[in-house]
Amino acid sequence: MANSTISSPALKDELDIVIPTIRNLDFLEMWRPFFQPYHLIIVQDGDPKKTIKVPEGFDYELYNRDDINRILGEKATCISFKDSACRCFGYMVSKKKYIFTIDDDCFVAKDPTGKEINALDQHIKNLLCPATPNFFNTLYDPFREGADFVRGYPFSLREGVPTAVSHGLWLNIPDYDAPTQLVKPRERNTRYVDAVMTIPKGTLFPMCGMNLAFDRDLIGPAMYFGLMGDGQPIGRYDDMWAGWCVKVICDHLGLGLKTGLPYIWHSKASNPFVNLKKEYKGIYWQEELIPFFQSAKLPKECTTVQQCYLELSKQVKAKLSNLDPYFEKLANAMVTWIAAWDQLNAPGAAAAKPSKTSTK
Amino acid sequence: MANSTISSPALKDELDIVIPTIRNLDFLEMWRPFFQPYHLIIVQDGDPKKTIKVPEGFDYELYNRDDINRILGEKATCISFKDSACRCFGYMVSKKKYIFTIDDDCFVAKDPTGKEINALDQHIKNLLCPATPNFFNTLYDPFREGADFVRGYPFSLREGVPTAVSHGLWLNIPDYDAPTQLVKPRERNTRYVDAVMTIPKGTLFPMCGMNLAFDRDLIGPAMYFGLMGDGQPIGRYDDMWAGWCVKVICDHLGLGLKTGLPYIWHSKASNPFVNLKKEYKGIYWQEELIPFFQSAKLPKECTTVQQCYLELSKQVKAKLSNLDPYFEKLANAMVTWIAAWDQLNAPGAAAAKPSKTSTK
Repeated sequence: MANSTISSPALKDELDIVIPTIRNLDFLEMWRPFFQPYHLIIVQDGDPKKTIKVPEGFDYELYNRDDINRILGEKATCISFKDSACRCFGYMVSKKKYIFTIDDDCFVAKDPTGKEINALDQHIKNLLCPATPNFFNTLYDPFREGADFVRGYPFSLREGVPTAVSHGLWLNIPDYDAPTQLVKPRERNTRYVDAVMTIPKGTLFPMCGMNLAFDRDLIGPAMYFGLMGDGQPIGRYDDMWAGWCVKVICDHLGLGLKTGLPYIWHSKASNPFVNLKKEYKGIYWQEELIPFFQSAKLPKECTTVQQCYLELSKQVKAKLSNLDPYFEKLANAMVTWIAAWDQLNAPGAAAAKPSKTSTK
Repeated sequence: MANSTISSPALKDELDIVIPTIRNLDFLEMWRPFFQPYHLIIVQDGDPKKTIKVPEGFDYELYNRDDINRILGEKATCISFKDSACRCFGYMVSKKKYIFTIDDDCFVAKDPTGKEINALDQHIKNLLCPATPNFFNTLYDPFREGADFVRGYPFSLREGVPTAVSHGLWLNIPDYDAPTQLVKPRERNTRYVDAVMTIPKGTLFPMCGMNLAFDRDLIGPAMYFGLMGDGQPIGRYDDMWAGWCVKVICDHLGLGLKTGLPYIWHSKASNPFVNLKKEYKGIYWQEELIPFFQSAKLPKECTTVQQCYLELSKQVKAKLSNLDPYFEKLANAMVTWIAAWDQLNAPGAAAAKPSKTSTK
């Protein structure tokens, strides 16, 4: 499996792997058979003076805070500092169609037969076949080998819609919030659920950024991980925020999101006390955010991701600023993010220069 | 497992098993360890002169067409003849809180460890713990051992809602429509997906009646399997029709539906040519039915299942009669069904007398 992956990886020239800082060198060694054929974009979340050692043989570019400031100028304010939310800068500087992003405490998992799971391969499968958000298929992904649409599934909906996002899961340490971590410190996810499914239209879900792939051309400008970390009142809602925005926009534009396979092995639980401090405002703000996103409607004039995202930023400012001044700042950052995205992704725009580049 | 089930079955006095005719005596022998402690209601779908032999030791009552006519009088027109849709008469005559219904070509399946699956036990688990239709949980059923709500799941939604329906799946022969059966005659479902999930609010699904349990008190009057079989222009849409009505009403009343485990072993595919004849009108009518159910709204004054169902019958008559006169007949049958349900389930109503009753 590993060797065949190296010799002919799927979408080699169309996919970048984005990683927010690598603290653990075992991480890349473990993923080497699967990641080495791909280009890595590493976005360092903390002190730019610290250096990240990338093992030999990987094709990568590395951006630190100084690079982000240099490349984006005053628009750099939209990128979080000292928080893994900075990874979304990597989505912006990539020139590829697909992105896979993964945390550095996520290792290769094994399927129930003991075989190492090529997570990237499964994400690519998920992204390349259609999603079915308009009707639920009880045998899960109808495009998977050995499965199909069941009796009663309308034929006109079987073509499906393009898949914009593939959300993978985690064995071992589940992605729990601080209260649940505190209450269930020993809980581990040992259940391998052999399924991929589409999140139905109109339904929100908690999108985790640990093991996530998406089609940059279809949904990239909505994959903004917000303002977290240094100087911000919350953390650990970066991927959630992105997921809610992305879901509302996918529903509006007729795009699909899948969840399920592939699993990665999430090696260590983050500190629940630190997490509680980061999350506690989010925990009650969320009670207002969910109804906001559940009822958000985009006008039909919004036909591009950018238009949808700017419209959503207006609604955030109008409807959430009274919750906390943070949301006004966030709404402004959403606008800045789109401006920065368009600047780096304009036709003929020069490639952003990282501080470190290496090619095998 | 089998013995412990016989000695202390869950909800023994609160659940009836409803079976539409039994052509295959192996069926009950195979299920004996799991079914024998429960009361069976058998509804014979064809010629009342034919007798169904039930093996020794089962506690059952048997209704044939003559019984249905005798008990319901002119209201008997709402119960299908020569079609397994007649099973819904069994839901009406039951006095129990829970119903499990299963087809006679569904046998005991084995889990991946080779252990026989007690389907009834899993349905009861599904029905007794809450459902979560208002937000998607990526680790599937949060109430299952070893699982919980993930980070980003709003705390106010974690209480869940009462579960009205548990929809089980099938290993071996998948529940495909005739066109898919014809195109993929050799396809078998071999994938055991170890998950139970709630169908999100606002999403329709194809509810199959092969392996289905529900809470009669919560949703019984909406579990009408329509007019199929003898004298009707379609078949094989009985459970689908029930599922769409049930889903719209559950969404309105704040009830949940789950799908996934338990699996049964579906032993034989029905004839695809016969099925095509039964289905072909349904296949194109369905293209109108799905948008109808997707946009159906019930007024907030409808607070009981009966009120919801009668309102839905009005909408069927108003919006679907132009599709085919069949839908006017069906809308009238929906009203008759509720009248019959209320007659048999009125406080103090006498129990319906079957043609055969046996107690072990």
